[in-house]
Amino acid sequence: MLRLAPPAYERPLQSPQFVATFGGGEANVAVSTSNYGIPSAFVTALPANHEIVDACLRELRGFGVDVSQVVRTDGGRLGVYFLETGANQRASKVIYDRADSSIALAKPGDFDWDAIFDDATWFHITGITPAISEDAAALSMEAVEKAKEKGLTVSCDYNFRKKLWKYGKTAPEVMRELVKFVDVGIANEEDCQMSLGVSVDVDVESGELDEKKYEALAEKMLEEFPNLKMQAITLRESISASHNGWSACLHDGKGFYLSKKYQITHIVDRVGGGDSFSGGLLGGLYRHPDDPQAALEFAVAASCLKHSITGDYNRVTPGDVDGLIKGGGSGRVQR
Amino acid sequence: MLRLAPPAYERPLQSPQFVATFGGGEANVAVSTSNYGIPSAFVTALPANHEIVDACLRELRGFGVDVSQVVRTDGGRLGVYFLETGANQRASKVIYDRADSSIALAKPGDFDWDAIFDDATWFHITGITPAISEDAAALSMEAVEKAKEKGLTVSCDYNFRKKLWKYGKTAPEVMRELVKFVDVGIANEEDCQMSLGVSVDVDVESGELDEKKYEALAEKMLEEFPNLKMQAITLRESISASHNGWSACLHDGKGFYLSKKYQITHIVDRVGGGDSFSGGLLGGLYRHPDDPQAALEFAVAASCLKHSITGDYNRVTPGDVDGLIKGGGSGRVQR
Amino acid sequence: MLRLAPPAYERPLQSPQFVATFGGGEANVAVSTSNYGIPSAFVTALPANHEIVDACLRELRGFGVDVSQVVRTDGGRLGVYFLETGANQRASKVIYDRADSSIALAKPGDFDWDAIFDDATWFHITGITPAISEDAAALSMEAVEKAKEKGLTVSCDYNFRKKLWKYGKTAPEVMRELVKFVDVGIANEEDCQMSLGVSVDVDVESGELDEKKYEALAEKMLEEFPNLKMQAITLRESISASHNGWSACLHDGKGFYLSKKYQITHIVDRVGGGDSFSGGLLGGLYRHPDDPQAALEFAVAASCLKHSITGDYNRVTPGDVDGLIKGGGSGRVQR
Amino acid sequence: MLRLAPPAYERPLQSPQFVATFGGGEANVAVSTSNYGIPSAFVTALPANHEIVDACLRELRGFGVDVSQVVRTDGGRLGVYFLETGANQRASKVIYDRADSSIALAKPGDFDWDAIFDDATWFHITGITPAISEDAAALSMEAVEKAKEKGLTVSCDYNFRKKLWKYGKTAPEVMRELVKFVDVGIANEEDCQMSLGVSVDVDVESGELDEKKYEALAEKMLEEFPNLKMQAITLRESISASHNGWSACLHDGKGFYLSKKYQITHIVDRVGGGDSFSGGLLGGLYRHPDDPQAALEFAVAASCLKHSITGDYNRVTPGDVDGLIKGGGSGRVQR
Amino acid sequence: MLRLAPPAYERPLQSPQFVATFGGGEANVAVSTSNYGIPSAFVTALPANHEIVDACLRELRGFGVDVSQVVRTDGGRLGVYFLETGANQRASKVIYDRADSSIALAKPGDFDWDAIFDDATWFHITGITPAISEDAAALSMEAVEKAKEKGLTVSCDYNFRKKLWKYGKTAPEVMRELVKFVDVGIANEEDCQMSLGVSVDVDVESGELDEKKYEALAEKMLEEFPNLKMQAITLRESISASHNGWSACLHDGKGFYLSKKYQITHIVDRVGGGDSFSGGLLGGLYRHPDDPQAALEFAVAASCLKHSITGDYNRVTPGDVDGLIKGGGSGRVQR
Amino acid sequence: MLRLAPPAYERPLQSPQFVATFGGGEANVAVSTSNYGIPSAFVTALPANHEIVDACLRELRGFGVDVSQVVRTDGGRLGVYFLETGANQRASKVIYDRADSSIALAKPGDFDWDAIFDDATWFHITGITPAISEDAAALSMEAVEKAKEKGLTVSCDYNFRKKLWKYGKTAPEVMRELVKFVDVGIANEEDCQMSLGVSVDVDVESGELDEKKYEALAEKMLEEFPNLKMQAITLRESISASHNGWSACLHDGKGFYLSKKYQITHIVDRVGGGDSFSGGLLGGLYRHPDDPQAALEFAVAASCLKHSITGDYNRVTPGDVDGLIKGGGSGRVQR
Repeated sequence: MLRLAPPAYERPLQSPQFVATFGGGEANVAVSTSNYGIPSAFVTALPANHEIVDACLRELRGFGVDVSQVVRTDGGRLGVYFLETGANQRASKVIYDRADSSIALAKPGDFDWDAIFDDATWFHITGITPAISEDAAALSMEAVEKAKEKGLTVSCDYNFRKKLWKYGKTAPEVMRELVKFVDVGIANEEDCQMSLGVSVDVDVESGELDEKKYEALAEKMLEEFPNLKMQAITLRESISASHNGWSACLHDGKGFYLSKKYQITHIVDRVGGGDSFSGGLLGGLYRHPDDPQAALEFAVAASCLKHSITGDYNRVTPGDVDGLIKGGGSGRVQR
Repeated sequence: MLRLAPPAYERPLQSPQFVATFGGGEANVAVSTSNYGIPSAFVTALPANHEIVDACLRELRGFGVDVSQVVRTDGGRLGVYFLETGANQRASKVIYDRADSSIALAKPGDFDWDAIFDDATWFHITGITPAISEDAAALSMEAVEKAKEKGLTVSCDYNFRKKLWKYGKTAPEVMRELVKFVDVGIANEEDCQMSLGVSVDVDVESGELDEKKYEALAEKMLEEFPNLKMQAITLRESISASHNGWSACLHDGKGFYLSKKYQITHIVDRVGGGDSFSGGLLGGLYRHPDDPQAALEFAVAASCLKHSITGDYNRVTPGDVDGLIKGGGSGRVQR
Repeated sequence: MLRLAPPAYERPLQSPQFVATFGGGEANVAVSTSNYGIPSAFVTALPANHEIVDACLRELRGFGVDVSQVVRTDGGRLGVYFLETGANQRASKVIYDRADSSIALAKPGDFDWDAIFDDATWFHITGITPAISEDAAALSMEAVEKAKEKGLTVSCDYNFRKKLWKYGKTAPEVMRELVKFVDVGIANEEDCQMSLGVSVDVDVESGELDEKKYEALAEKMLEEFPNLKMQAITLRESISASHNGWSACLHDGKGFYLSKKYQITHIVDRVGGGDSFSGGLLGGLYRHPDDPQAALEFAVAASCLKHSITGDYNRVTPGDVDGLIKGGGSGRVQR
Repeated sequence: MLRLAPPAYERPLQSPQFVATFGGGEANVAVSTSNYGIPSAFVTALPANHEIVDACLRELRGFGVDVSQVVRTDGGRLGVYFLETGANQRASKVIYDRADSSIALAKPGDFDWDAIFDDATWFHITGITPAISEDAAALSMEAVEKAKEKGLTVSCDYNFRKKLWKYGKTAPEVMRELVKFVDVGIANEEDCQMSLGVSVDVDVESGELDEKKYEALAEKMLEEFPNLKMQAITLRESISASHNGWSACLHDGKGFYLSKKYQITHIVDRVGGGDSFSGGLLGGLYRHPDDPQAALEFAVAASCLKHSITGDYNRVTPGDVDGLIKGGGSGRVQR
Repeated sequence: MLRLAPPAYERPLQSPQFVATFGGGEANVAVSTSNYGIPSAFVTALPANHEIVDACLRELRGFGVDVSQVVRTDGGRLGVYFLETGANQRASKVIYDRADSSIALAKPGDFDWDAIFDDATWFHITGITPAISEDAAALSMEAVEKAKEKGLTVSCDYNFRKKLWKYGKTAPEVMRELVKFVDVGIANEEDCQMSLGVSVDVDVESGELDEKKYEALAEKMLEEFPNLKMQAITLRESISASHNGWSACLHDGKGFYLSKKYQITHIVDRVGGGDSFSGGLLGGLYRHPDDPQAALEFAVAASCLKHSITGDYNRVTPGDVDGLIKGGGSGRVQR
Repeated sequence: MLRLAPPAYERPLQSPQFVATFGGGEANVAVSTSNYGIPSAFVTALPANHEIVDACLRELRGFGVDVSQVVRTDGGRLGVYFLETGANQRASKVIYDRADSSIALAKPGDFDWDAIFDDATWFHITGITPAISEDAAALSMEAVEKAKEKGLTVSCDYNFRKKLWKYGKTAPEVMRELVKFVDVGIANEEDCQMSLGVSVDVDVESGELDEKKYEALAEKMLEEFPNLKMQAITLRESISASHNGWSACLHDGKGFYLSKKYQITHIVDRVGGGDSFSGGLLGGLYRHPDDPQAALEFAVAASCLKHSITGDYNRVTPGDVDGLIKGGGSGRVQR
């Protein structure tokens, strides 16, 4: 998707200008995993003969993401979203303009999953794709089924988006089927509830979150979806648009792990924050395969850093993440 | 429409930035006529609950254009176009992203023409609207029929756009019907040929145009469409993306008028140039109702100036236009 | 006034650039009330034949503000102010360059108050206009007298500006006369003291304010000016240029109302903050005519949001304000 | 003066931004002469306690111009001018906002000419200063009288500005007295006519100028003002706002010299072009004291280069100028 | 190399800003050939642990250029060049800051040519690399020898840079040896003379070039270096920094081919123009292997377009180039 | 040095742009002292024929710094550093590119210290210069010896930079010799330890610093270097890249002074913060020669303000500093 944001904290068109970058759930994760040294490919459908799309792919390729399996279509649009960046009590706002995007029009059979999954070991999907159209939901099911069939590990960020889910099915109707093919589930508390209908009693508006309840929620997820090997949950305390608390927890069936909590007091850009956690978790599990706590800390530190970076993509190296984990974020100039 | 253009002469996304302005045939004309002191309203359909649309209407309102009759719809998008500004041998490029815009989804009956045309004396339309969808074509027909019924003068810029006209009818099939309701026709030579199937033998790629043939073309238009009281034709000599010759002619059934020709040697922005001629012609006819030559010179001078102005809208005053007509464009600093 | 500010937190001319916007007490209020759905007009004097003034009026008109009663004068300047935006311990600085502005040169009789007040129900003025020249003070008196005569409600932000008041009279000499025509008084504690000579014992530099004393101050105002139906007082705790506490109180003769207090921890632009309170109060009284507490909360929430918005104008909708009142400012992304 | 110009070719406030630089006749000349290695000082009055003025002086000081004799006043403003940069047939426009500037309020006696002229050998003034107020005219007279008394060479750019000269005297009434103290006169043909009432029959609007007539004009100047040792006249052919022909001539009583003519086909900024000629002539006479042709060629080449440089100041070195004189302006990349 | 250029036509540091892009002879060619669909790799040495270098490689990778063989070194710098963009008579200026760059410090043996040339069919080098240090010259010789040994076609742009060649050998001493391994030579007339000591009598400063002499020069090259299968020569007529004539010729031993000549009247950026010719020639020979005239026309049209594109890289597609060849550069808007 | 920083909080080359300013330890101090009214000169070596260097000197001259003793060399580069500005947990990063700068190549004898120190009373140096090369260390020793010989007061910021000190000597080996010539020592705790090998037991990573230990450290410094008349130590608590606590202490042999502590909660730019303390201390001692506490408070307030100012230079006036000392940093708008 093309992301169009007014400069700094302006409301749209105060200046006749948009900062134009690219993003979107799965692409954001692919950039992250590639940054962490994992060979990564991004698969989607995008319109052909479109210079803005060419630029989008050029950027992904630059990050080392393999885009050779992207399908260029004659119909369909490049999805767009407008982002207004909030501050203090004024929340950031997103206006989506992605109806009739190429991926929304894509159908099962449009992708050559055998070729795509050849040599692959992991497949990541979000709850956004099944939300955009009935065809995209069917395509998503095809993808996870095929991935499991080919022996890949499947991860999924449940990612509930209320304004989508307009084609007649509810999120849980679709997502509960899809999650049956998932090994590693990623969500915040609201996603569990709204995408899958799984909840425990926590007030998401309060800001002050009771971390203990999250263990119960993760356990409940693992029970309801026994295929899940792992459930990660992010814990965001929204104090204002400029200040969030940020931490996460993980349950792998054997143990429950709670991360360090970061106070992010001067948020630069929090869009893509959740995706950066997914990417960080994949990176963490890749780098610390036998240490769930370390993998989780990697994921939380990586996504903590994302909040200081402009744009959807989390432009950090493993060294940046490890530096934060070790150094504690005191912010001394590195020279 | 929202217009998104990279800064200066950059190709898309060399910088992560778009210059974001608004434009589109009829809006461009409305801004011009309002600038020339004619009470002007703009009628279209645009999506509701959309801050970018709010900004668009805010700008039109600022120019004095009445937007109170704009219909805000639940469905449909805000049309977008991407513009890359060319230089020298590199042509400017436009990528349209306006499928499923609110106006493309609008249908006859959606507008209250009685209210819209109340107290109105003139209605202007372009050949772009009937091209975007079958419903929009029917709506366009409804509009011109109603306008004539209410006694308004109707003007139309035939404006052929090859990439549109995809819903199964050819441009001439639709436009020849619509032009039957038109009093003042505006076009370039290609528009006459492609929109209406009316042509004389001139090579539009050559740059060097033979102005005499245009008299024949205008006469032929007036013959084929006897309702036409006036046919204006713009004459653009494209020497390069940076240098055009610019003039126009007009036939009002009684006489043929040829304008002064301007060499526009340092084009700043030629998108909206044709619309600025339409707006200039309406302004010229309003200011010089009994002097077709003066009206034409006003239109050509106004649109000549547009080529030096960034954005679709022609931000000139009658004083600027008259100044060019009198002063000859020597460009001495005004202080 | 034209407002010229260096980009971001730069001191003047670090970059050869000014961010150029418009503002000024009464215009800021008119934009706010128009945004809240109140038909609003702005009345002032501005120089004729001046493209920067044209742009200023274009922007106001875009916001829906009626500028048809603005008088364009042959003499006089467009007032200018330079603004340097502070951060942390470095305060924002304003340099005024508005001597000899058109409004400073305006005199009683220059405005057709009968036409201006025709169909009007409310007139708002600030203590800045009477401060700029003896003529402007006389004109201000003429305006409020005429407004009362025509049965309008009059509101006034006392707005003390030390650097003005140079023509030989003190602020209280003039303002105490003017406030006799006012129904709704708006001020901070310093304005009451410096503009009107009314004070209670509070240290304005301390940051930590004792809200209880404000009830006494409001009561004293209502006593000294029995015509006042309502006195609103804003309470700003200046912790630094980046962090303010923000709340307000209101006394309507029957009761004293104290608003919620907001911690504005990442101020984007606090110039125009007081005006946004005035605009918010007018909007609140319009939307909640029988609920002083709701009107006050609307005013405080509206002006709280202003601190996150660049430029003098408070670019918020009633929905934005109500959203803050209900949502508590947790700043979760709206999508 | 502070110069405020919209970015690139925009009309004012298309973007909420001004490019902010400094300029003005005498300052422009001082920067030039300092660039050419001549110890140079700038003398004017500017308001005290004004950070924008501080920045202005900082920039001049950076160019090596001595600003220690600038008088900082309690009253008076910093003059401002708004510049819109034209292209093609659209002329650049200047809106002055310099009424009540400190220098307009300055009077004879305000400057310590003895100190200022101590060790000085040359004094340059323009026809703008005597135009802005009666006091400034008297001050100008005081300056040239004192300069001559102290044995300095005096140069003057007659520089006619129609919009000034409003205090009751005509330009020739004042300027003819002032020029009696001048050794080196600089002008274009219009300046001679409008400032001094000296003319020959040439149509300044035609573009195509007859250079031969300029010899007659220069001779006439030397006859009417026998104190003049030298009269230089610039010859600008305004083909459009983007394309000018540029040359000059010089008469020193002994001979008439005509410079090479440059076609400036892609004007970047022509404001300050005349001042850059004055500065170039002073530089040329300094570097080629015995070769009027070489001095003239230096002046014309220097000011030719100015047209490619943004801002009032001519940011060129003697090496740049000599390079153009020798190299012919073929524009090959220097590396 | 990192390229740092002031915005637009500014001289350095008028604004505190540089436009920062990447470029350099061989990289520019690699981007071009990749754009034309030729699998392309870029080989050089660059410092390790350097985020600016990472960004450089990210961009090249985005263009599809294989950078996996770039050697990251502990010592050495990233070369920098400062570019000031000229206009009219003011030439563009380059200040190099590339002493002690990683490639300048590289030595024979530092690259694994067997791996690099594995599966490769073509090697391109310029005369700049052998000029920067004695080691780099030896490395260049090693590269071309190895390339020939492995059966690759070798092309070389002789590219004379006077300010380099400081290590004690003259350009011809080194380049005449290197060119013995070259199959396709590329140069302008000055390069032949200064790099190789081969000349015919043409005045490069005159602008007006006699194309006929170029046949003699190409023939002389083929005679002196019998290994050369083809010699291409670019013909630039420098009318000003803004206007160049541009064409080229080619001799392949069998015939002499002269291209169409383009008038580039509004140069946007001519740095990288020569490299874009090299890239275009490689692209043309790849796409038209049996048609030297077509290959040459492709090269000239491609590099003509480069002059309208900001930055060193020629961001054009084969479609853009073919469009110019067919369409003649009339610059009509493509929509 | 030229400082190149991406805009705002971007990582390098997210936008193709660097904010380009100048800085470096001693230059930063010279700008500060000149701002405080102390006649100041900056002495260094910089490459000749380099427009970027010319711009650097132009800016220093603008601040009133005498640069007439800067040596322009044929060899050597202008040092560059790349700065990425951090936020929250993401630290700012500096990449130095200053190998082979002119000053690194400078040797004893290159400067005419007699001329430089003529009429001078104070010499300031930092620990950076002796770190960059053996020659520069010898030159630094020559400078301080000569300064003492001529009776100047010598101040030194020990300023440890780990990445420098590569020529074979350790920092203490060199710096302990140099500090023997110093009267006023300036440092943070780490500098004392790493540059001079003097330490007390404080954990610099903890954030929470025990100010009492600093008295011990200062005393130890005065003991080990009995020539020191004064040792100042800055105390920075790094809570994050956006929030630091800031204070300092001073021991003059007679007493120990501890400053007010500022919470800098919204850091704009902390690079140059230490230098701004040095400059502030010199300014404080100059303005309050008999009041060490006042001098210290001046230094701390000045450098506190620096953290809100973009660029290395501390663009504050004595009035700004005194205003903070008196007003307490409540950040109320100054108008």
